[in-house]
Amino acid sequence: MALETIFDSLKKAQARLALQNRQEKDAALRSVIKAIETGRGTILKANTADVEKARAGGMKEALIDRLLLNDERVNDIIEGIDTVIRQDDPIGKIRAGWVLPNGIQVEQTTVPLGVAAIIYESRPNVTADAFSLAYKAGCAILLRGSSAALESNRALVKAIRDGLSAGGGIPDAVALAESGSRDEVDEILQARGKIDVVLPRGGKDLIRRVVDNARIPVIETGQGNCHIYVDGSADIPNAVDIIENAKLQRPGACNAVETLLIHPKALAALMPLVSARLAGKAELRCDSRSKAAIGAPPQGLALRDAVDGDWETEFLDYILAVKTVDTLEEAIAHINRYGTKHSEAILTKDLKAAEEFERQVDAACVYVNASTRFTDGGQFGFGAELGISTQKFHARGPMGLEALTTIKYRIHGSGQIRP
Amino acid sequence: MALETIFDSLKKAQARLALQNRQEKDAALRSVIKAIETGRGTILKANTADVEKARAGGMKEALIDRLLLNDERVNDIIEGIDTVIRQDDPIGKIRAGWVLPNGIQVEQTTVPLGVAAIIYESRPNVTADAFSLAYKAGCAILLRGSSAALESNRALVKAIRDGLSAGGGIPDAVALAESGSRDEVDEILQARGKIDVVLPRGGKDLIRRVVDNARIPVIETGQGNCHIYVDGSADIPNAVDIIENAKLQRPGACNAVETLLIHPKALAALMPLVSARLAGKAELRCDSRSKAAIGAPPQGLALRDAVDGDWETEFLDYILAVKTVDTLEEAIAHINRYGTKHSEAILTKDLKAAEEFERQVDAACVYVNASTRFTDGGQFGFGAELGISTQKFHARGPMGLEALTTIKYRIHGSGQIRP
Repeated sequence: MALETIFDSLKKAQARLALQNRQEKDAALRSVIKAIETGRGTILKANTADVEKARAGGMKEALIDRLLLNDERVNDIIEGIDTVIRQDDPIGKIRAGWVLPNGIQVEQTTVPLGVAAIIYESRPNVTADAFSLAYKAGCAILLRGSSAALESNRALVKAIRDGLSAGGGIPDAVALAESGSRDEVDEILQARGKIDVVLPRGGKDLIRRVVDNARIPVIETGQGNCHIYVDGSADIPNAVDIIENAKLQRPGACNAVETLLIHPKALAALMPLVSARLAGKAELRCDSRSKAAIGAPPQGLALRDAVDGDWETEFLDYILAVKTVDTLEEAIAHINRYGTKHSEAILTKDLKAAEEFERQVDAACVYVNASTRFTDGGQFGFGAELGISTQKFHARGPMGLEALTTIKYRIHGSGQIRP
Repeated sequence: MALETIFDSLKKAQARLALQNRQEKDAALRSVIKAIETGRGTILKANTADVEKARAGGMKEALIDRLLLNDERVNDIIEGIDTVIRQDDPIGKIRAGWVLPNGIQVEQTTVPLGVAAIIYESRPNVTADAFSLAYKAGCAILLRGSSAALESNRALVKAIRDGLSAGGGIPDAVALAESGSRDEVDEILQARGKIDVVLPRGGKDLIRRVVDNARIPVIETGQGNCHIYVDGSADIPNAVDIIENAKLQRPGACNAVETLLIHPKALAALMPLVSARLAGKAELRCDSRSKAAIGAPPQGLALRDAVDGDWETEFLDYILAVKTVDTLEEAIAHINRYGTKHSEAILTKDLKAAEEFERQVDAACVYVNASTRFTDGGQFGFGAELGISTQKFHARGPMGLEALTTIKYRIHGSGQIRP
């Protein structure tokens, strides 16, 4: 189908979907779960075809893993939809209301954002996550996945649309852009008046390309050059656990830590433990003081001198840059200079340091004594996420249902005119 | 000063301003009011120079009127700042909070959006309005007015900065881009990482140029192809008052009505009265049925047949297009097709019609029985406005303090890692 036709069909479907109440939307989503259960075999078969093709084409195993679906991951998809169902309807809330001196009543209410488009890379679970959030928020959604995941996405979207049909829902509220051409992306990015927002979800290049070419509103997502600052008063054994978790649990995730900042008071106790914990697992790129604090390097430790470029790099890899900062202020200044306003953590026992860090660090998520890996719609309890917004509009941080709403002022008069 | 230097200075000032509490910000704004009072003579003199230059250059009187300041308008500027002072601090509100199953506490708090830039046309009051809202919301602001208002803006910004200095405020939180070159606008639009949002406020061409060239987030403002739908049950004499007000009170404003939609039942009673009221004041562009309903045209009535292009035109002039629609559904469909999602009104006594109109019309402000001219930050009680957002993000409709805030998640753990 031509994209123009899809745009029109999404817009019409969205106008109808906007009028559905919670019961209707939830019933349709429950029916989608059933259809995914029924279609599980077909979906996994389609995914196997994608995976075989990707492997034959020489795709790296880390990327294959992102592309892969299995029974457990299909269960996760279903659980995500179920969590979305259990959440409150974000639409129709009256967020504020007041009466003007002339008696006109003003209400600020929440309404669906409209038609969204998401341009994303190979994870097929994004297909279901983005759809379920959009549907519950009364939005139609255009899905533009990668060509590597085309068969998986086709099978998933077919199951979703079948489920919507069977459950009294509106199947045309979801569509897959499947030509795979770059022109297709450009056409989406130019669709003024047809697409209300575009969400790029993927690597730096994808996001940059969308920002450069979009003539429609964009919510940027995902780049995360995240820091952990270990204050002089931090609990050192716990700091080692948190650093290990934030670096190793999933280094390719945007909420993984990339640079460790350390107060001089913590240096001597922390560095030997951190280097022992990460030896053989991640490379350290240290400034001279943190390097000296390691003492005799533990067996298997990959160690390099940090260079300036390291501070601004989102490694997305088993690499951790380490820098000594003399004060809390220096840590904050470093983060506000090199960070991407994603997730930033302080490890401390000092109340004042925690408060200053929280106030002064400019980021979507600011942590005290926890791993940065919690910046995630699922972890936040949203069931799914559209991505992590690093932009400073209403949608900042993990984007769940609220991110797909906007406001409408309802104004009731009794004949007033403006003098 | 080079723009690069200004960007840096705004960013540093904003980081300091973000830490000020309400008392500090309000005290600084009160001092700005004093400085504007003191500088009133200088400001008016600078404005006279702008006006004389514009007149010599052949500027139309309607535009001269937008450029003009006088004592009354300076009073309005001061009153706007005073209203901003009296409003709640939009920063530091906890909008939501919950505890994750592992005990991590999540708080969604409001924080300043950061550094804003506003690119606007000749009204100098926008200079003070945008500044005062930005300052109270903890944002630094770059003002890029038109070259026609340069002397007025210089004098106003000088008074504002003097006031901030005298009142313990942060003068570098406001700056004027004054080269007047087009390159300057492009440099602002490319300032990724330096400017957090740009607000174009002006005509269609300005907004289009910003959207086409911006690589930073934009909130579009102002285009208003607004409609009034007169339902069959409407109070006709009141409808005539509202139509006259919405068309004539300020035809150049974005919230003025451009097209009147009429149910057949209202046609015979309404058209003779509307045409009599507007005769000699505005041109009517009618479809055949509404034209026929006028009967004998009153003296002085400018009357033309409507053409298709009229439905999509924001006249910003003494022109009103008129169309007969057979049903409420047709009225809604017409508005959703041709409207710019700004301000749309239904005049009716029928509860169900009012509700359907409110639900189905996609616009920032939907009116029942009142003039569309109330879509305005001042009228809404915001004291001032940054513009009327026709985009569907958090800032939709008149943009006051809230539009310059974003959220920050504060996450408190006790050492949690992600399993």
